[in-house]
Amino acid sequence: MTATLVLLRHGESEWNAKNLFTGWVDVDLTAKGEDEARRGGALLVENDLLPDVVHTSRQRRAIRTAEISLHACDRHWIDVKRSWRLNERHYGALQGKNKAETLAQYGEEQFMTWRRSYDVPPPPIDRDDEYSQADDPRYAELPPELAPLTECLKDVLDRSLPYWYDSIVPDLKAGKTVLVAAHGNSLRALVKHLDGISDAEISKLNIPTGMPLRYDLDLDTMRPLKTGGVYLDPEAAEKAAAAVAAQGKK
Amino acid sequence: MTATLVLLRHGESEWNAKNLFTGWVDVDLTAKGEDEARRGGALLVENDLLPDVVHTSRQRRAIRTAEISLHACDRHWIDVKRSWRLNERHYGALQGKNKAETLAQYGEEQFMTWRRSYDVPPPPIDRDDEYSQADDPRYAELPPELAPLTECLKDVLDRSLPYWYDSIVPDLKAGKTVLVAAHGNSLRALVKHLDGISDAEISKLNIPTGMPLRYDLDLDTMRPLKTGGVYLDPEAAEKAAAAVAAQGKK
Repeated sequence: MTATLVLLRHGESEWNAKNLFTGWVDVDLTAKGEDEARRGGALLVENDLLPDVVHTSRQRRAIRTAEISLHACDRHWIDVKRSWRLNERHYGALQGKNKAETLAQYGEEQFMTWRRSYDVPPPPIDRDDEYSQADDPRYAELPPELAPLTECLKDVLDRSLPYWYDSIVPDLKAGKTVLVAAHGNSLRALVKHLDGISDAEISKLNIPTGMPLRYDLDLDTMRPLKTGGVYLDPEAAEKAAAAVAAQGKK
Repeated sequence: MTATLVLLRHGESEWNAKNLFTGWVDVDLTAKGEDEARRGGALLVENDLLPDVVHTSRQRRAIRTAEISLHACDRHWIDVKRSWRLNERHYGALQGKNKAETLAQYGEEQFMTWRRSYDVPPPPIDRDDEYSQADDPRYAELPPELAPLTECLKDVLDRSLPYWYDSIVPDLKAGKTVLVAAHGNSLRALVKHLDGISDAEISKLNIPTGMPLRYDLDLDTMRPLKTGGVYLDPEAAEKAAAAVAAQGKK
């Protein structure tokens, strides 16, 4: 017996397009991002992979990606669950900064440490920073020790794993096809866990936007039958992942 | 202490526009319906009435109305709950039929009995009817005795009240501002219950599309402080309700 999980990174956002660090800033999809979400939904139909339940972050770009792709595959009516634990990595003081300018200002080593080191977070965001979430109503119920001011990938894994175990796994165990619509780094954290990727190796993993990634999991161990899963459109996914890896270098 | 409930009938649907009986057929919003949903969301902002949780039916026109209005008031991130118990009345064999043609064919008395009598349902839909929900995956888990083939308003009240008590009331008791995005008849049933409207009088109540209707409820009794609630845009609501009442007569 296997469980079926589909991971979907949101389509291109306004700040992906502008090459800005986004993190917890709640930007919308671009028109291209909406198209990617629709294409993602069409791929679910073509592959007979219709979700029974969707889990999203609390962020608009993941929520709209879920909505658009589910309308496209006629599964708009399924149950919806949301959690800040699926949010993108909080990028601390880098939120709102241009990736290319940050690279030029701090140099490649510091830049790549912030982007891809497993356990070094960027400097924390100031409460008064225009891109701080200090007064964001959607996180008003989080106690201060849970509301991040910056995060490294390890922090993201630490806060997303409880949601994996407590909310997603029970749906998988119940035999539901589960769609997780989330973000580059919350999905990298989840894939690190699923595939048992080392702290060093995870830096090389890039997840492209809008490309459904299917994992068939052993129902007992909740580990993948095939490491890395299967992109529904592998050729497009490979190209797109290479483009993510090159970000900032323009 | 009071609880705050906002009822929102979906914006104009493709079949509202064509003057067809819709029921459980899962039609989409028109462009006008999308505008109504956006306007509904803007009214929530203007009235400082931001929902903490949304309950919808399993039908696209209510789901999209919720999505669009919540994006418009920046509350897209709240928790979502869905149930077939909030679906529109099942219109039986009338589903897909033109209202004006049905009126001409059966005469005003029969027509108004089907539309507005409290306890006389239309003839049941045939399993093989192109507008039957017999093979609809979203109702596959309903046991046959719960899946309606036709409904009168009394049937709608009987199946929606358990959801009111078990799912909506607990959110209200928890102090949440609750948005219910649903349908003409599932909302009429709910309003009948809230306002204690008689079986005879309910026939005169019409709920316009896309107009948020606010109820402040006593936290103990879960009954309205003001019978009938308050439309956020009362003038537009009155005009629109009159238009609903006149449906079929064109």
